[in-house]
Amino acid sequence: MIDQLTLSDVLAEHARSRPTVTAVVDGEVRLTYPELDERVTRLADALAARGVTAGERVLWLGRNSHVVLELLLASSRLGAIFCPANWRQSTDELSFVVADLTPKVVVWERSEAAAPLSGDGWILAGADYEAFLAGGSAVPRPEGHPGGPAGGSAQAPGPGDDSAPLLALYTAAFDGRPNAALLSSAALVAHSTALLVVRRMEDGFTFLNSGPLFHVGTMMFCLATLQIGGTNVFTPAFDAEEVCRLVDAERVTQAFLFGQMIDAVTEANRDGKYDLTSLRFISHSAEWDGMTTVDDSPWCRSKMGGYGQTEVGGMLTFLGLAPGAAGPAGRPSPLVQVRLLAPDGGEVPAGEVGEICARGKSLFSGYFNRPELNAAKTRGGWHHTGDLGRREPDGTITFVGPMLRMIKSGNENIYPAEVERVLKTHPAVADAAVIGVPDERWRQAVKAVVALRGEATAEEIVEHVRARLAPYKKPKHVDFVEAIPKKGFTPDYDALDAAHGGGGYPGS
Amino acid sequence: MIDQLTLSDVLAEHARSRPTVTAVVDGEVRLTYPELDERVTRLADALAARGVTAGERVLWLGRNSHVVLELLLASSRLGAIFCPANWRQSTDELSFVVADLTPKVVVWERSEAAAPLSGDGWILAGADYEAFLAGGSAVPRPEGHPGGPAGGSAQAPGPGDDSAPLLALYTAAFDGRPNAALLSSAALVAHSTALLVVRRMEDGFTFLNSGPLFHVGTMMFCLATLQIGGTNVFTPAFDAEEVCRLVDAERVTQAFLFGQMIDAVTEANRDGKYDLTSLRFISHSAEWDGMTTVDDSPWCRSKMGGYGQTEVGGMLTFLGLAPGAAGPAGRPSPLVQVRLLAPDGGEVPAGEVGEICARGKSLFSGYFNRPELNAAKTRGGWHHTGDLGRREPDGTITFVGPMLRMIKSGNENIYPAEVERVLKTHPAVADAAVIGVPDERWRQAVKAVVALRGEATAEEIVEHVRARLAPYKKPKHVDFVEAIPKKGFTPDYDALDAAHGGGGYPGS
Repeated sequence: MIDQLTLSDVLAEHARSRPTVTAVVDGEVRLTYPELDERVTRLADALAARGVTAGERVLWLGRNSHVVLELLLASSRLGAIFCPANWRQSTDELSFVVADLTPKVVVWERSEAAAPLSGDGWILAGADYEAFLAGGSAVPRPEGHPGGPAGGSAQAPGPGDDSAPLLALYTAAFDGRPNAALLSSAALVAHSTALLVVRRMEDGFTFLNSGPLFHVGTMMFCLATLQIGGTNVFTPAFDAEEVCRLVDAERVTQAFLFGQMIDAVTEANRDGKYDLTSLRFISHSAEWDGMTTVDDSPWCRSKMGGYGQTEVGGMLTFLGLAPGAAGPAGRPSPLVQVRLLAPDGGEVPAGEVGEICARGKSLFSGYFNRPELNAAKTRGGWHHTGDLGRREPDGTITFVGPMLRMIKSGNENIYPAEVERVLKTHPAVADAAVIGVPDERWRQAVKAVVALRGEATAEEIVEHVRARLAPYKKPKHVDFVEAIPKKGFTPDYDALDAAHGGGGYPGS
Repeated sequence: MIDQLTLSDVLAEHARSRPTVTAVVDGEVRLTYPELDERVTRLADALAARGVTAGERVLWLGRNSHVVLELLLASSRLGAIFCPANWRQSTDELSFVVADLTPKVVVWERSEAAAPLSGDGWILAGADYEAFLAGGSAVPRPEGHPGGPAGGSAQAPGPGDDSAPLLALYTAAFDGRPNAALLSSAALVAHSTALLVVRRMEDGFTFLNSGPLFHVGTMMFCLATLQIGGTNVFTPAFDAEEVCRLVDAERVTQAFLFGQMIDAVTEANRDGKYDLTSLRFISHSAEWDGMTTVDDSPWCRSKMGGYGQTEVGGMLTFLGLAPGAAGPAGRPSPLVQVRLLAPDGGEVPAGEVGEICARGKSLFSGYFNRPELNAAKTRGGWHHTGDLGRREPDGTITFVGPMLRMIKSGNENIYPAEVERVLKTHPAVADAAVIGVPDERWRQAVKAVVALRGEATAEEIVEHVRARLAPYKKPKHVDFVEAIPKKGFTPDYDALDAAHGGGGYPGS
């Protein structure tokens, strides 16, 4: 299989091509690529001895650590699946993850929430993990053997097959439970190369993993840094002062930082104690720009804009690929294609809202152990993101909002997110949510639930929408409330339906 | 198949994402991406009506033209194989290509050499081609149908399968006849993204196809420009004045130019008649640098250095990925891995010469209709390039030379190219070639055939090599000649063997 390239292969090549380059910095730990390669070889051997063969799962429950990268790469060498789970979850939530993934090996940092779950196959990070790793052989297994890279005659799936699932990341619940999105080596390598293009990453790139590695946002830069043979610096969790210290000490090129994190770092370095000029990053404030180097790569000059989700490997579209774009999500990565589809599977015309659907090299391999959901999400040969978008006249894409419940009124499909967006442009509206209520004639009618910050009548609210959207999308009913109930950042539609008479949704 | 991306898909996405961007400029022809997409849809339909189904071949015999890109993309839409052949070949050579590929359709520019071969399925470029294309339907075929992109249920190989061979480029003869290297959409897309990284190509990139499209050197930039949604400008063949005019008129970012071509363009613009500042390219001479913009991308600042061949999609290694590298070929593309192998398949240690072998996303799918050669070239799961290289202590790669005939002396393998390289570093040596001659004790012995430009004895020549290579590699015999006979750029080893007693090669 001369056309294969797993993450394990990427590491093996760096060990040959970059014998003196530092791959990993984590506290006192500093590893060159050959040193990392040897540790991964030992770890893969030790994992194989615990029954981790192709398709088996390995779980990490802990903060950021170079161990995350080691477990990922050793799993790649074995054809296994690695999951770095959110260690901040409750015992019940972690219990669900463990029961869902049924990992052969769990490496964990001791925590109150995880402790009740530990048992056979659980290895504590630190001394226990080091002893476990040291027990593995440093002699690479021959090609084509379990635990060794594939030989010329290897057939999918198994070690060496880059389309086999490798990384599992839990994502939002569509059906009341979280699902582990599976990304293959091929998808991860493809996504990384798109980032290399848009972020202009080259030899010597040094990334500070200052966001959580169980989210794709940090993981995708960790992997792109690996792809180009750069240096990954790990810090257990975000701490502004420690970020400053590490950027200065390791000449970090980029860190996982945005918004308030950047403000906190600026504040921590107000006295100029640390030299942050190695950081080539986005323009943010005069103070920040003065202490760092403003980068002109498409990624940085677009303030990291775009649209993405775990299921597409990270980013699907980049504003940086569409200078002057009308649509704030920009244009698709060079490795994917995007269509905006109506519920019947047809493409909606430019200017109309449809579900953002995608195909391409960075796309996921489905969710672990969810055959029905996978079939639904990939119907017609397109991944259905569950998010709404619109093509602007210049071909660029606007992210409209999550699809959530679609309202069916007559033969028309109405997406609450689109109507909500327009409602919120009314100067008197502080917040708004849209639900469907049963309607004898049209099956459902649109109801707007509105929190005001000024004065407006229901008629004025309806007229505001009517002037801006197709007539069938305007609310038939308006309820005024003090505040919209929320689940995280999005309206709590269950609570809204219960309080305001919602129902009759198609498919429900 | 949500993880697929054919070149046809890339075009379809640009038609959506870049409705107003110029895809193609060729004389009077200017096509936006939607216009190119419609022409490709018509062309695919017309080709399908001529029996061009998945796996069938389409041949282009002519100079550079936008028609090359149209035929390639229409072939992608059909799952067919497209070959732009060297139109400068003799009737006998072209006859071999036609008999080897057995194309269903040939599109050609009238030439004396090709005329005797034309017959059924031959379409003249120009009015005949336009009429042929116009006869095809502009309505895209439904997904999953022949001539339409694959639907969700499509299985390999066929339309929509990005691992199916798409582009055929004839390469050097290993066994006395040229072979058509097959590159899939997946390989071409992967190679393009590596170029996007190293050349820092972005939206708006405009490439002047001023080298021949039947060579991978021009084709690879044509395809990377397509990948990022830039503009491809075509000119029938290199002409310095026309290059100047097109760069000025189309604000060209990069052209296929090197060495003497750059000198000729500099000379043609000596009076500054044309504005060439849009050209962002390598530093070459004070005059050139003054009339263009010197680019600081890894590709341009390394003077385009690296190692490649058609079989790896173009470039395998880039000097631009290894600033300050000891090995002038730099480091592998982020999408491949490279090993230097001994004839027994084992990896040679750093510092030793071995055959450059590769795996990865940009690699070819074998040669068309050469099962035995393909098995030999991919033995052990590695593509054997037939070229020699060496890892330097910093992990970077030195290209040593073509492997050609290996000499076997005792148990040792000696590559002529390595010894020749050292011979040529002697100040009195103008040129040198190394052959094996039969030897009773060692099976073969090394003979150096040397053309002098100064004075040196055979003993001095042998001592020069002995001081720099392993002892068994030093010549046992030295013959002095006026000039080394050549085949193109390489020594004519058949003539050398005949004149200087060569023979006894392993495998012969």
